[in-house]
Formats: sequence, structure tokens, C-alpha cells
Amino acid sequence: MPRSFARNASTLRPVTLEAGISRYAEGSCLVSFGHTRVLVTASVDDFVPPFLRNTGKGWVTAEYGMLPRATHSRNPREAAKGKQSGRTQEIQRLIGRALRTTINLSLLGERQIVIDCDVLEADGGTRTASITGAYVALAQAVQTLQRKGVLKTSPMIAQVAAISCGIVGGEAVVDLDYEEDSGAEVDANIVMNADGALVEVQMTGEEATFSKDQMQRMLTLAEAAITELCAKQREALETFARAA
Amino acid sequence: MPRSFARNASTLRPVTLEAGISRYAEGSCLVSFGHTRVLVTASVDDFVPPFLRNTGKGWVTAEYGMLPRATHSRNPREAAKGKQSGRTQEIQRLIGRALRTTINLSLLGERQIVIDCDVLEADGGTRTASITGAYVALAQAVQTLQRKGVLKTSPMIAQVAAISCGIVGGEAVVDLDYEEDSGAEVDANIVMNADGALVEVQMTGEEATFSKDQMQRMLTLAEAAITELCAKQREALETFARAA
Amino acid sequence: MPRSFARNASTLRPVTLEAGISRYAEGSCLVSFGHTRVLVTASVDDFVPPFLRNTGKGWVTAEYGMLPRATHSRNPREAAKGKQSGRTQEIQRLIGRALRTTINLSLLGERQIVIDCDVLEADGGTRTASITGAYVALAQAVQTLQRKGVLKTSPMIAQVAAISCGIVGGEAVVDLDYEEDSGAEVDANIVMNADGALVEVQMTGEEATFSKDQMQRMLTLAEAAITELCAKQREALETFARAA
Amino acid sequence: MPRSFARNASTLRPVTLEAGISRYAEGSCLVSFGHTRVLVTASVDDFVPPFLRNTGKGWVTAEYGMLPRATHSRNPREAAKGKQSGRTQEIQRLIGRALRTTINLSLLGERQIVIDCDVLEADGGTRTASITGAYVALAQAVQTLQRKGVLKTSPMIAQVAAISCGIVGGEAVVDLDYEEDSGAEVDANIVMNADGALVEVQMTGEEATFSKDQMQRMLTLAEAAITELCAKQREALETFARAA
Amino acid sequence: MPRSFARNASTLRPVTLEAGISRYAEGSCLVSFGHTRVLVTASVDDFVPPFLRNTGKGWVTAEYGMLPRATHSRNPREAAKGKQSGRTQEIQRLIGRALRTTINLSLLGERQIVIDCDVLEADGGTRTASITGAYVALAQAVQTLQRKGVLKTSPMIAQVAAISCGIVGGEAVVDLDYEEDSGAEVDANIVMNADGALVEVQMTGEEATFSKDQMQRMLTLAEAAITELCAKQREALETFARAA
Amino acid sequence: MPRSFARNASTLRPVTLEAGISRYAEGSCLVSFGHTRVLVTASVDDFVPPFLRNTGKGWVTAEYGMLPRATHSRNPREAAKGKQSGRTQEIQRLIGRALRTTINLSLLGERQIVIDCDVLEADGGTRTASITGAYVALAQAVQTLQRKGVLKTSPMIAQVAAISCGIVGGEAVVDLDYEEDSGAEVDANIVMNADGALVEVQMTGEEATFSKDQMQRMLTLAEAAITELCAKQREALETFARAA
Repeated sequence: MPRSFARNASTLRPVTLEAGISRYAEGSCLVSFGHTRVLVTASVDDFVPPFLRNTGKGWVTAEYGMLPRATHSRNPREAAKGKQSGRTQEIQRLIGRALRTTINLSLLGERQIVIDCDVLEADGGTRTASITGAYVALAQAVQTLQRKGVLKTSPMIAQVAAISCGIVGGEAVVDLDYEEDSGAEVDANIVMNADGALVEVQMTGEEATFSKDQMQRMLTLAEAAITELCAKQREALETFARAA
Repeated sequence: MPRSFARNASTLRPVTLEAGISRYAEGSCLVSFGHTRVLVTASVDDFVPPFLRNTGKGWVTAEYGMLPRATHSRNPREAAKGKQSGRTQEIQRLIGRALRTTINLSLLGERQIVIDCDVLEADGGTRTASITGAYVALAQAVQTLQRKGVLKTSPMIAQVAAISCGIVGGEAVVDLDYEEDSGAEVDANIVMNADGALVEVQMTGEEATFSKDQMQRMLTLAEAAITELCAKQREALETFARAA
Repeated sequence: MPRSFARNASTLRPVTLEAGISRYAEGSCLVSFGHTRVLVTASVDDFVPPFLRNTGKGWVTAEYGMLPRATHSRNPREAAKGKQSGRTQEIQRLIGRALRTTINLSLLGERQIVIDCDVLEADGGTRTASITGAYVALAQAVQTLQRKGVLKTSPMIAQVAAISCGIVGGEAVVDLDYEEDSGAEVDANIVMNADGALVEVQMTGEEATFSKDQMQRMLTLAEAAITELCAKQREALETFARAA
Repeated sequence: MPRSFARNASTLRPVTLEAGISRYAEGSCLVSFGHTRVLVTASVDDFVPPFLRNTGKGWVTAEYGMLPRATHSRNPREAAKGKQSGRTQEIQRLIGRALRTTINLSLLGERQIVIDCDVLEADGGTRTASITGAYVALAQAVQTLQRKGVLKTSPMIAQVAAISCGIVGGEAVVDLDYEEDSGAEVDANIVMNADGALVEVQMTGEEATFSKDQMQRMLTLAEAAITELCAKQREALETFARAA
Repeated sequence: MPRSFARNASTLRPVTLEAGISRYAEGSCLVSFGHTRVLVTASVDDFVPPFLRNTGKGWVTAEYGMLPRATHSRNPREAAKGKQSGRTQEIQRLIGRALRTTINLSLLGERQIVIDCDVLEADGGTRTASITGAYVALAQAVQTLQRKGVLKTSPMIAQVAAISCGIVGGEAVVDLDYEEDSGAEVDANIVMNADGALVEVQMTGEEATFSKDQMQRMLTLAEAAITELCAKQREALETFARAA
Repeated sequence: MPRSFARNASTLRPVTLEAGISRYAEGSCLVSFGHTRVLVTASVDDFVPPFLRNTGKGWVTAEYGMLPRATHSRNPREAAKGKQSGRTQEIQRLIGRALRTTINLSLLGERQIVIDCDVLEADGGTRTASITGAYVALAQAVQTLQRKGVLKTSPMIAQVAAISCGIVGGEAVVDLDYEEDSGAEVDANIVMNADGALVEVQMTGEEATFSKDQMQRMLTLAEAAITELCAKQREALETFARAA
């Protein structure tokens, strides 16, 4: 089956990252991986969750949502259903964990940064696009805090990005779109930092299994893709900094 | 106090309406009134709510949401809180009522069109921008149904738009931004159709009252504004039709 | 179609207002507009909602409910369904706004008055009967605070009442009962104060529109009706004061 | 401590039962035990709960609610809190069980009667007043069904009433008001039918216990009281029948 | 119908009580009445509910749950349904009340003991097994507090146990299993203390009634059974103390 | 730091698996990994979820819960809080996915097997113990269906087990207890089948990262452990089969 955007197994979809897209948020990024588009904002609060009060440490957390018609057919609005699905909660926990590896929470001080990832259009890979955009929004929010003099030194200690990969028709491929994802034997999401260290590996066979070799091939594809995404993140932050 | 965008009392903020913005929805519109930006989609279902089954009539309904950081400070996500606020429900009922006056539900047949209005950025007037954009999304969805041969004749029977007005510092003004809205003595929302007929009038004094004269002045401002918005709606639909 | 109680277009249904009906509440009123009967209580709290703490200002808020069998057929109990409908929330927000225009919240001091409007029987006009009765209950609660020496001077600054009107069979009529309301082309609710100033105007065409002339005629009917209701409110408060 | 209404240990508070109080319900009763007042309606549905479908049997169920200001200080509205308390659910289960002993559910046929007990004012004994009034409302609803020809023969097979009793200051007393109830060592609720058979016995010591002798004395008081209540129920139904 | 375990009307099912079964809880008991098995833990908190703060008094409360497949067919998990049933709430209120009669809450001081009763297997009598096991868990938790020196003197003032009884086929029997319970004309639960004082009596006829004689016979059976259960409770506590 | 049970890095805690522990469930297993104890039941339904109706395919799903006092300090009951946490939902989705790889859903036919994993005591590794025990319960439930003649041939196609591993103090270790888990730099859960194929890999660094070498070492440890667990699963099923 030919891949969308005439890609081969190791090619990313067209990726764009636009920092500073939100008028009000301290940090923001509109990220697209092909037809998947996510609006990410980073909001700074002057307080931390109860379990961190008086510890001197800050916190980074994430929420995730999808507009009802981000997809081929409309999904009921979670606010109307009155609860977030297990999938939503799983994704926002993943985003939060990934982002917390990029920042020294003690240097952040007793403040919280809330990352909101709202999917405007979904064509596969919304969680990896969210993490990749969220790093940009978080970095911009931290720069805002430095510019305002709230932070003297940057608490940023690492740069993360994420990509999906999978086994489709027996072959390892990177950055699956919705159609590939639906038919994949194995579905994986990899989060790495710019130094090539692993942050999170999730590989799942639903009604299928995979070998250690396949696992290795997926990791290799992911590593190259994440290196490319990290370069684009730096570029987006520089473009924004020049414009500001 | 000078108005934003150097406007006088009867001037709208810069308005843009872009039809066909969503990849998946049958109809869509990105509408902006100044810094207020709302993404509207119209989704067609092959069924109707239980109370209309086997009546031969269709239905149009609306849902409204706001991204957590659409505003100056972050609002908790309604999906996370587990319920929609009274304000959200009031707005989505208003949008639904307004749109149902534009369509012959018997001609639509037993199908439902769900309008989703998601506020990306909010600077006052989100409900009137939503209604104005929703008409465009609904009209495009109906055209999609006609193009696919699902509908032989158009069920559209009217065109509606909406605008806010109010009494600020004793003076009637149109299209209030957030700052004006916060300080207004009277806050009004007017829905009219392209023939100048009234669809909905809501005028509210919180800790203040207003005279029949003031009411009249607000209506006059609204009528001129709505005429202007209706022209822009037609233009957006024509631009989209030409491009399609 | 002849109107209930052999009324003409501008006639109210028989109205009764009985202050001091509740054994425990600081203020109360049993109000009936024809067969619509609402029990209103005003309860005084020694605290205010968080957003008003340490401001020196008080608050007035309202809640609205309907007994399950207040209507022709039984409605599920909102407490059993686990949430209040959009309609309920819209009505209680309206009642609260209307009542807050009658009182100087700074003179009330840091206390809250909660108005509960519980519909015992519903035959149209429950929200306007609620507002009209709520003014009486609120005024009585303020008198209770004065009598107890909690308030030295009265914070009451205005008197409000409300009435429904509409376009039925092309004609403007006032104080619609349930049957008229179900068939009305336009449904309106008007809140005014005793000085003839407007507090809230809500006019709604569902699957219909209305002209500015029709709007004017409804306002004229409402103004006369509200003048009559205000006289009955004063009478109810005087009757209670004499009996106390 | 002298008892309210100058009663001795075995005296009921003034009891009134007014059948047919609701304009819309098939059966209804306004019941008062002293200052406790409960509005009871009986609503007939043409269907039964899923577990009884196609069994030929009917159902009787009950719901219970309390107006927020039925009591000395205001209680939050259960509809606003989004759930019914354990106490509410316990009471409505009790009312339903008691009423189901009065009716042959097979003779009722596949229909459901929903009893709503809404407490307008609460001064102790709301559950026993509810049961006592509910019997009257249920009997009236059955008569309505017979008068309409829906039922050929009456399914009523027994008459129930209920009363509270307790141990206060070491002495057994009947029909406790709120103040007595708050200070009682033992709190009991007894449901019996007009033939002197027991339907439900609930005796509870909170931070106290009781002897079999005390239990016997409470039962004796309850039996006499219930005989008296049954006579009043018959009287209320006859008064209503004469007036109809 | 022969009774399970070849019992006669007055015989308990095999009863086991094993104290100290939980690795982490301050007190615990695995209780079985025949095939009914309940795991009870008693957890000590250093705080009390808001209504007791700064009173010097402690609190004992209980929660009750049933594993989804504790019964013949699987019941939906209450955590997944999002609310506890009326039955669950009624039972946990009963357990809490019964336990609070065994302890001087002032001597306990400002701490709370939470009793969790989780039914592993249910064959009738889960609430009476819970109460009987809960006393053991509570007593052990208090001993833990004494051993740690938190409490100088024991606040325990009584010993309670509970048993079900009922009228089955016209005959009074004790300790009903699920099958008997399903067919019983009258269902009763009795809580008594080791001194023979009554703590709670609940006797319920669903679609049936009972006489005072039948009531007396059930009480007589219950009293003998509870005496036996109290002996087993003491034995369980002694066995644990010896082993500790 | 010495490991619990005097283990080295590659040693499992004492593992026990007891099949057929539940009186009512079609399949069940009490599993312990050291002090972690989980009661697993498998319940067979005669229906499938709506999305599978009339497809001829069956379904396996899982739910997970933890008794409030399974842990060192008491956790609020999810049924009382009214919702399942994100963690709970993440775990039950994982268990369901893992189990579905062991069974041919078409051969199962239109029936559903619900796996309930209830943690009685938690000392780390509850999700991996759950999966390991769930395989045993599922296999027993399938045998029950075969014994009853409902299934002619076994739909079981694979055997899965799961184990946690992690990086603690820089070293890769297997089967972490709670204390190790709390201090681990990297936390991983691996699901494999008896043929050495991977089913799910989840490796997470919270506030830490890991190298591909470390990943490899964790996988190697997990593979040996899972081989050992699979042997124990077969033994448990054989023991049960011999006893039945």
C-alpha cells in the first residue's frame, strides 16, 4: 500500500511547528504532522497542586482534548458526556510525564505550567504531535517567565519530541496516519530527548505480537525521526524569538 | 474611552468568515470578530433525536465549547470538571434556536445537523460570532447534501446573523470587546435574519436598568451591523463555491 | 381561541401573592398566576461566595426547581437524574440577575441571600411568577434582617416584577398559560422595575420571527401588567407587615 | 420537657390529610403531622420497569425530596449537588416497600404508579407522614383508574400508615418532632396496616441501646397511633369522594 | 425445604472470624458466615470529619462494597457506574451506626476509624457478617493504638454482633442464605450487644406482613445467635493477641 | 540496597497462582507476587458489546480495582468518589489488550468474558500480577465453557504473562516491590507470551531517561521471568484440573 504524501517507511509527513500562535497564553504552538493539527498552549499558574505546597518545587501537567469533528465522523463532546475517556486520560498523563523530564522543577519554583493540547484535526499521531508541540509551547512559556524577570535562570534541562511507529503489513514504518494506524499489527509511541536518550517506549500489539527484531527496527526509525523533529522545534523557537 | 480598532459606536470590529476550513466536516467556518475566533463545524447525522423519529422532520442542534486558554487566564476544561456550565448550555440553546429558523425541517428530512462552535480565542461576542459563522457552516453542509444528491431541493429558508450591543458609559455601542463587555451597564445580543426580521432579542441589565429609548438605539445599531454581516456571509459562501 | 379565565389580550390571570408562608425561612412568598403556583423562600447566609470574600459586598442568588408532577405528565426528578437541565440553569440565572438589580449589595454587607423557587404546579409563566414572588420574599428577608438589628438601613433600591408575553395567532397577548405558550409564534419574558425601567428583555422566535412593531406591542402589554403586579407585591408586603 | 402541642407520650400531633390537592396528578394528598407538611402525588405510567416487562404485573415505586428551606437552616438542593443522599434513597425505598404491600400488583396490570413525596416543611417524622399521605394518594389514583374504566376491579388489598416513636429521656413517646428526634436515645419508625399487621419495624439506637421492654412499649404506642391515622385516611378519601 | 449445612431453624451456618488478616490495616478481619465471605479492615486517620473538628471527639464510619463477581451472576462495578446504589449506602450507614455504639468517641479523641467491608463472596447475610467482622477489626485497631501508646485507655465500651432472621414458609429461621432470603416473606436484621441490649432492629415485609408473635420469635432466635457470635469474636481477638 | 526476600536483580518474588478460588465465577485465580495479592475472576456473558453484535465475534475485557486499604495508607473508594482514576482505566485497558491476544475471538463466538482484577494487597506490580493471574482465570473459564459443551474447540491460541522491571540505583532489576518502584529511575511493564513474542512494552522515565542498553537489559530480565511465570500458570491450571 503506498503511503500518504508518497512517503517511504522512514519518512515523516510534512511537519510544521508555529510558536506563539495564541494571543493570551504564555507559550503556544500550532503543530501539524500531515493532516493532524494540534493547538497547544502553556499557561503559567502562580500556585502548585496541594501535594507540592511548601516544597519549593514546581509542576508541569497536561490536558488533552479533541474537537468533536476533528475526525471523519463526529465524536460526542466529552464535556457533554460528563467525563473524559480512558484514552484521553492515558494520553494526558503521557504528555505530562514526557514534559516533566525537560525541566528542573526546583528551578521552576512553586508555580505550575498547564499544557493544553486540543486537536483541531486528527489523522493519526495526535499524541506524538501533541508532545512535540508541547515542548515548543513550554519552552516559550519559560522564556516569557525569564523575559518578565520571574525566572533568573532557565529551568529547561532537556528537549523532547515524540513519534509513532508501527508494524504495517509486516513492515516497520514511522509516523502512521489514521488509515495505517487502523490496520497496524503493532502500534508504538516513542518519546526521546535531543541527546538520544529514551523517555518513554510504548509498544502494543492488539490481537498480534512482535519480535525483538521488529522492536529494534521501530526504535531505529523513531530515533531518526525524533532527531529531525528536534531540529524543527529549535527552528520554530528561533523564528519566534526573531519575530518577538 | 477609545474603542478597539479605532472604532466609533456603530462600527464592527474587523470580521472574517472562511468557509470550508475543516477537512472532514460537511460544513465549516472559521469566523473572527476582531480577536474573537471561533471554529464552527456542521456535521450531518442520518438519524434524529428520539422525539422526532418517524415524523419525517429533521433537526438542527448546537454545541458550544471554549478552549481552556482561549481567554486572558486559563479556565478549567469542562470535560475535566465533568459538566457544562449554565452559561455554556444557555449559549448552545440560543445558537440552536437561531439556526432552526433558517431551515425547513420537513424538507431536511429525518436527519440531524449538529453545529459545533469551539472558541479558539475569546475577546467578547463569542456567541454572536458563533451564530454568524454557524449559518455559513450550515449552508455549506446543506450544499454538500445537495451535491451528493441526498437533498433534491434546498431546505434553507432564511439567513441569520447575530451581533452584540450594549450601553457603555451611557452610550449605545455595537460589537463589544471583552473589556467593554466587562464594564457595560447593559449587555444585549440580537439575532436577525437578512430580511430584517427579529429572531431573538436578549437585553440584560446586571445591577443596572435601561429605558425603551436605549433599547431602540441598540436595536438600530444591531440592524445595520447584521445587514453588514449577512453580506459577508454570502461572500464567504460564494468564495468557497468558486474554489470548490 | 378564547383565553383561559375569559381574558382579553391584555388581561392577567388571577394573581395572588402571600408573604410569610414559610415557617422557617427569613422571607417567603406563595405566588400564583392562574394555575401556576410557586413557593419562594429567601434564606440568609452569614457568608458570601469565594469571589466576594473580603470585599464588603453581599450577594443574591437563585435556584429553581419543579416538583416532578407539577405538570400534566410527570417529569423525572432532577436530583435523581443527577443534573439540572439547561432550562433550569437558564431560569435560575435570570431570577438571580433580576433580583440583584433591586438591592445595594454593599449595603447588604458580606452576607448572601439564596432565593429558592419551587414550582408546585405549572401552567405557563413559572419564571415570571418566580421573579414576581421572589421580590416579595427578598423584601421580607431584608425586613427580617432589619428587625433583628443586623441591618441598620434597608439595602433595597428598586422593586421588580416580571411577566410573559407572546405572539399567538398573530396577536400580541400577555401572561400566556401553558396551552398558549405551546402554540405561540413568539415567546417573551420581560422584567421591569416599578419605575418603568427595563431590567431584562428576552424575546424568542422558535421556527418563527417577529417585527419591531410586534416587539413594541409586547412591551406595551408587559409594562401595564408589571405595574399591576408591583401594586400587588406592595399589598402582599403590607398585609404581612400588619399581621406580624 | 413538655411536648409540643401540649401532648402526652401517646398523643399524635394535629394531623390533616387532604386528598385531591394536585390539579394534574391522578392521586394526591397534602399531609401534615404538626408542622411537618408533605405534598404527595401519585402518577400513573402506562409501562413498567424493564424487569417486569411481559410479566403482567405492575409496580409501585416512590421518590422523596425536601425543598431546600423546608428546615431551620437551608440544605443544598440535591439536584444542584448532582446526587441524592443515602438518607433520601433509604427513605424512598422504605416508602415504596410499604406501599407495595397495599396492592395486588397482578391486578394492577402492566402499569407503574410513581409516588412523589416532597417535603414542604420538616419538623420531624417526614418519612412516616409521607407513607401515611402516600396511601391516600395511591388509593385516589386507583380510584381514578377505576373511574376511567382502566381497571375493572380494585387491586387495593390493604391500608397502611406509619408513625415514628422513640425513647426520649428514658420514656417511650410517639410522633416525635424535630427537637425530640434530635435528642432521642432511640429512634423508631413503624409501618402497620389497618388490620394491625406489621409491615416494617425500624428501631435504631445511635450511641445508645434499648431493651425488649422498651421495644414493646414503642410498638404499643405505634399501634394505637396507626389505628388513629388509618381512620383519618379513610375520612380524607371519603371527603374527596363526596366532593368529586 | 431442608436448610443449607443441614441446619434447623435456630442454627447458624459455620462461622469463622480471622483477625489480623491484612498486612497494612491497623485492624482487620476475614469473616465467613457459610459461603458469605467479607474482608473487613479498620483504618485509623489522624483527623475527623469537618463537623467534629475541635470538639475533642472522634468518629467511626463504614464503607461497604461487593466485588463484581461475588454473586451468582456478575454485577456491574459501582466505581464504573459512577455511583453507589441506595442499597450500598443503606448498608454502610447501618454498619457505621452499629459500630459507634461500641466506642466512647470522646475517649477516642480527634481521630477517625474507617471500616471497609468488602464482600468477596455473597450468599446472604453480607451486612450482618460485615458488622460482626467489623467489631473484631475495630477492636484490633484500638489495640494497635494502645500498643503504640496513642491511646492510654481503651475507648471500647461494648461488643456488638449482628444476624439476619426471617419468616420462610411461615416459620421463623435464623441466618438465611441467599436462596432462603430470596423466598422469605419477612426479612430481618438484628444488631445486639454482648449484654443482650438491642442496637438496631430492622424487619421488613415486602409484599407481606408479620405479626407481633412472629416478631418475637425472630428476636429470640437472633438473641441466641448473637450470643454465639460474640463468643466467637472474643475468641478471634484472643487468638490474634496470642499470636502477636 | 538489599532486595526484599533476599533476591538478586533477576529474581522474582515468591509467586503463587491458585486457580478455581471463586465459588461462582466460571474462571478465577488468586495470584500473589510477594505481598501483592490479586483476586481475579472471569465471568462469561451471553452477549457482546454493541459494536460486535451480529459479527459472530466475541470479546474479552477487563476491569481493575483496589480495596481501599490494600496499601500502606487508605485510598478513597472509587465508587464513593464516583469515578475511576486515569490510572485505573489505563491498567484495565492494558489487561484487556493483553488477554485478547491469547484467544481467537471468532472461535469464542458472540459471548463476552469479563475479567475482574481486584487487588487485596498491593506491594508493587499489581498490573503484572493481574495479567498473569487473568490468563489462568480466562483459561479456566474457557475450560468451563468446553466442559458444558458450549464450546466444541478451544479458542485459546496463546499464553501470556507479565512482569515489571526497572532501573533502580542505575541497575536493571525485575519484579519491583512498592519501595523499589517508588525510587526507580525507570519503570517498565512487559507482557510476553509463552513463545517469547512481545505483546506490550511500556517503559517510562519520570524525571529521568534511559539508554537503549538499559532497555535491552530490562527486556532480558523480563523474558526469563515471564518464562518462569508461564510454567507456574500451566502448573496452576493442571493442579486445578486434577482436583476438579
